[in-house]
Order: sequence, then C-alpha cells, then structure tokens
Amino acid sequence: MTAASPRRGTLVLVPNGLDFGAPQPMPLNRVLPHAVIERAAALTHWVVEDAKTARAFIKRIAAEVPLAAPLQSLSIRELPRPAKGKGGETPGGTERAWASLLEPALTGHDIGLLSEAGLPAVADPGATLVALAHVQGLAIEPLPGASALMLALAASGLNGQQFAFVGYLPIDGATRAARIRELEASSRRQMQTQIAIEAPYRNPALLQSLLQHLAPTTRLCVACALGWPDGWCRMQRVSQWRQAPPAISARLPAVFLFQAG
Amino acid sequence: MTAASPRRGTLVLVPNGLDFGAPQPMPLNRVLPHAVIERAAALTHWVVEDAKTARAFIKRIAAEVPLAAPLQSLSIRELPRPAKGKGGETPGGTERAWASLLEPALTGHDIGLLSEAGLPAVADPGATLVALAHVQGLAIEPLPGASALMLALAASGLNGQQFAFVGYLPIDGATRAARIRELEASSRRQMQTQIAIEAPYRNPALLQSLLQHLAPTTRLCVACALGWPDGWCRMQRVSQWRQAPPAISARLPAVFLFQAG
Repeated sequence: MTAASPRRGTLVLVPNGLDFGAPQPMPLNRVLPHAVIERAAALTHWVVEDAKTARAFIKRIAAEVPLAAPLQSLSIRELPRPAKGKGGETPGGTERAWASLLEPALTGHDIGLLSEAGLPAVADPGATLVALAHVQGLAIEPLPGASALMLALAASGLNGQQFAFVGYLPIDGATRAARIRELEASSRRQMQTQIAIEAPYRNPALLQSLLQHLAPTTRLCVACALGWPDGWCRMQRVSQWRQAPPAISARLPAVFLFQAG
Repeated sequence: MTAASPRRGTLVLVPNGLDFGAPQPMPLNRVLPHAVIERAAALTHWVVEDAKTARAFIKRIAAEVPLAAPLQSLSIRELPRPAKGKGGETPGGTERAWASLLEPALTGHDIGLLSEAGLPAVADPGATLVALAHVQGLAIEPLPGASALMLALAASGLNGQQFAFVGYLPIDGATRAARIRELEASSRRQMQTQIAIEAPYRNPALLQSLLQHLAPTTRLCVACALGWPDGWCRMQRVSQWRQAPPAISARLPAVFLFQAG
C-alpha cells in the first residue's frame, strides 16, 4: 500500500498596494478586494521581494482581517536579487536556491508571492519563480489587484487596444534619443501606446528627453503617483507640453506613455 | 460681479469584475476594493459600454453599499459603438456626440466610465472619451482594479519587464501565420512577452495556429477565465503543448501569451 501523495500547495500571486514609499500608507481596503485580504491573511508561507516591507504589508493585512498565524511565526523568504540586465529580469541565485523557495508547496502549503507594489512579476521580480512553479506543475492563483501601468494607460486616453511596456530607457543621452525615436516610429506604424518607467530621481531628466526628442504632434501622458492620495495624470501633445513643461517630482513614481499622432 | 465658475466634475474610471458572461456573477468584494465600491455607489452619472449590463453591475454595487440615488434615477448613457478598425479603436459617433457625454461634468457631476469587464479603455472602449476629458481639462480618477491581461501576465511566468498587448490576430490563415512569426521574431529580439486575445468561439482555432506556427522552444501560456471560479493558467514550451494539446473552451474568455526562448 502506498501512501496517498499529499495535496500540493498553490503559488498565490498577492497584489500589493500602489503607494510603496508613501509616508502614510493607505488602508488596504482602498486598493485590495476584501476577498484578497482574507486570502492573504490565511497564508503562512511567503516569498517576497523584501522581507522588511513584506512584514509591513502583512501588518496592514492584519489591520483588516486576523492572520491565521502570528506574524513572527510566518515563513518569509526573499527572492534572489535579480542581476539587472538589458531588456529583462536576469535572475540571480542558483537553480537550487529557486527550487528551495517552492519546497513548502510540496508538503501542501500555499505560498504567497509578493512584490513591493502592484502585481508580482509585472514590472517587478518574481517571473522566474512563477515559471518554475509551472515546470513543477503547481497551480498558480493570481489574485485580482491593480497595476500602476494599467491605471496609467486607462487614464491616459491613449490607445488601450495596442500597447507595449518597454521598461526603462537607456540613460546615455545619444542612445536614449535613438531609443525614443525608435519607439515613436514603432508607435506610428502600429498605432501602439508606448509605456516607460524610470527611477523617480531620474523622472525630470526622462521627461526632458521625451519633450526634446518626440515629434510635436505625438501625444504624451505623464501619470504621477497614481494610487496615492495626490496622484495625477495629464495627457496632451508634445507641442503643448513644451509651452509649459510640468514640474515633475523626483521622489514620486511616475509612468510615461506616448502615442505618435 | 461674475458668478464663480461651478466646480467641474471628475471622470472616474470604474473597474468592473472579470467574470462578464459568467452564469453566476461573483460578489464584487471578490474583485473590487471596498473604497472603489463606495465611490461607485456615490455616482449618479455614468457612461458605459452597454446600459443593460451596466445596470446589472450597479445592482451588484448596491448589494454591497447603498446607492446615493435609486438605480432608475441614474443617468446611464452608452458610448458610441466603435467602428472596428485595424490596430486600434476607431471611434464611432460624431465629435458632438462624444462631447455631450461629458456635459454633466461641466455642471459639477462626477461621471463614471465603465466597460464590460476589467478596466475601461484597456483592451476595451473608452479611450476616446478619456482623451476628450484631457482636452477639456477635466480631472481623471482611475480607480484601482484588476485587468485580466495583467493577471494572465503575472501568472504566466513570462517576462513581465518587457511586454506588448497586440489585441486580436488576423483571421485569414496565411496572414495569421505571418503575424505569429513576426511577433515571435520581435519577442526574440526584445525578450518581449506577446499578449493576444480572441473572441471565445475562436479560441480553439487561435491555439491551433499558435501551436502550428510558433517554434518548439517558444514558451506559450494559456490563461482561461482568470477571475472566474474555475479559471486556470498553464505555461510550457510549444513542443510540450504539441504532445498533449489542451481542451480550450469556445465559451470562456482566454488570454494567450508567448515568449521566444
């Protein structure tokens, strides 16, 4: 007689709030569905981008729904730091290190995957772990939550039927200018909205480059701190922006979107 | 003495559930944050993709939070039907028809914009109205909600740092094959995840085309009915899919994602 194989756990993709870094975090019921908060409160095993901020997140969960186990008894492990590479996440860590993160699922524990803001594995680390879960045949349960990229796209008024997220643009001036023109040409050819982000302290420089190198008729949207109490979003043609360039914070997250017109 | 200009209303982008067409709609607290439900309950003016399903949505809102005004007294107007065009939303309706939809905002009413599922203006109509609101200088408030495309991307394990939503693929066999190869080449060049959708009744045909024309080493994810009770998501290489092609429903929404490997 062979023992029945234990139920295997699910990899649960837990959305975070969008206000990472805000001085006053908002109550989670502003950004997460109640059922998502309940599901997160029941998890005892976590794999996260950063353990310290994950604990802060779980405290916000506990403020809405009692946790299944005390915070200090939870298993909270960090993703291997990605090696920043061109055009994508180049995962750090050995194969064995990644596999060990999924071990609790083999003995029946659901595992929550969490990033610093929004959905894990979307403009954030985590995809390598999800891919490995597929290889291992684990069930994957993405809980519904917001993505700052999609809020910005919806609020931009630009084409939401064809769009590309292109991540970070090159920093070097000439390379950046060439990349901006390439993305604009691609946008014109495909009627595609291009979506880019930048480290907040470089937001003013990126905006300046976009205003310098995009065509006057291209429509440009700046979405700043959406999901924060004072978030804002403005879209107009580059020619209009040039007449009165906006003051953009070097401390707040922003999303830049443009469509050749 | 001139009268003070009245406060102008905000265009509020209201997320919908993801289970459009499901026989048993889920309680909205499964998919929407409580604060979003409260904000929606307070709106008296709506612009929607379809008035009948919008009323059903507002009833689901009312089941969680009392409405500010009775359902039958709400102003619910429909977006002009888009003329389906290549590569984007070609708006139907005259400029005047669009402008009239925003008139309540000029007298201080907030207006809720709602599509059939997920976020308005993302893989759904509404961008034309949002763009017009920008031209008129109205504030735009995107409420946080889920997008089926992003849940699928997070759950795919494919690259979430570079991705493109390419909408519907051509229906004609030869044109479709060429487009699939073009997208795969672009994915390889840019390490980019390609995201496509199809009308549910064509899902089996699209899956067959993808399995036929993608390279064996390309990773393909099928995400079916995410956000529904029985949603599922599987990712593996095309060579593996070919050994045991999945049964995909011709009635449920699906998202197809692939990345050249």
